Amino acid sequence: MAAALIHFPVLGRGGETLTATVTNLDVHDLSRSARSYGLAAFFVVHPRPAQRLLGERIRAHWVSGTGRRRIPDRGAALELSSFVADLDEALGRLGPGAEIWTTAAREGGGPVTTFARARQILSEPGPAVLLCFGTAWGLAPEVLARATLRLEPIVGRGDYNHLSVRAASAICLDRLLGPR
Amino acid sequence: MAAALIHFPVLGRGGETLTATVTNLDVHDLSRSARSYGLAAFFVVHPRPAQRLLGERIRAHWVSGTGRRRIPDRGAALELSSFVADLDEALGRLGPGAEIWTTAAREGGGPVTTFARARQILSEPGPAVLLCFGTAWGLAPEVLARATLRLEPIVGRGDYNHLSVRAASAICLDRLLGPR
Repeated sequence: MAAALIHFPVLGRGGETLTATVTNLDVHDLSRSARSYGLAAFFVVHPRPAQRLLGERIRAHWVSGTGRRRIPDRGAALELSSFVADLDEALGRLGPGAEIWTTAAREGGGPVTTFARARQILSEPGPAVLLCFGTAWGLAPEVLARATLRLEPIVGRGDYNHLSVRAASAICLDRLLGPR
Repeated sequence: MAAALIHFPVLGRGGETLTATVTNLDVHDLSRSARSYGLAAFFVVHPRPAQRLLGERIRAHWVSGTGRRRIPDRGAALELSSFVADLDEALGRLGPGAEIWTTAAREGGGPVTTFARARQILSEPGPAVLLCFGTAWGLAPEVLARATLRLEPIVGRGDYNHLSVRAASAICLDRLLGPR
């Protein structure tokens, strides 16, 4: 499995489609979570070259720059990250037949699959999976429409459901791949 | 259950004890995770008055300032947060008999309890629990020594174990309190 953090197309507060900026701690946290759960790759998806360049500079600082010497563990995580222009570029890196799975804080865009069932699917032989997380107010409908599997929303206790993408992605990976 | 994010005493890279600075996204992410999993309170523990004041200003922006009007859900999470000087002040807010539980990326400081057993304990009547997370390289030995329960480290897949505190705290709450 690989993960992707999508910055476009994502939703804004009012349901409009927008492009989100890269958040430094997203790159760190999702790389660290991806590495902890044995993912093959972590793609930061952003259409703007300047934002990808910013991300690549952050990555280089930790993978081969002075950050590597100071905190080697961080480099081992950020090595997994790469910066691509769109979802198709990420899929292309995974090879033919790779599938898109999506996450969302709310149901929508089609029927959802439980974490238990998705966990079972991942334990069996199958195509490469690109698990997509949205920034801002979540993935736009055109991304959900491309998914072969839409994960059920994370529900904690009660009806408050506004986890950060850093927290939600960690919980997803633990539910799908963590020890049971 | 309540949660605490400890900024002192915590460990540095070389095992020295230090005081970490407050990270804005920690306050947001842990408040949002705490609210999603129904916690009673989230304490940011910092010995420096200027750091607590900074935290309180962040909180006020979202709970009663312009942030509240812009993103009401964020205010509902940050309402749970408060800024205290030390662990005893947090315990005092929870009332007599409150217990300290600790988290760590590695075993140490005494025997650990599995998430499954801790989950069972929380499901039964008992004293209030303050679940403590460390910033920097984790909680100092003097905090671990005060714990009535030390949670087992989070293990994903393989031996890489360097999750961010934002990711680790989310996984902990999901394992302890999430639906099963």
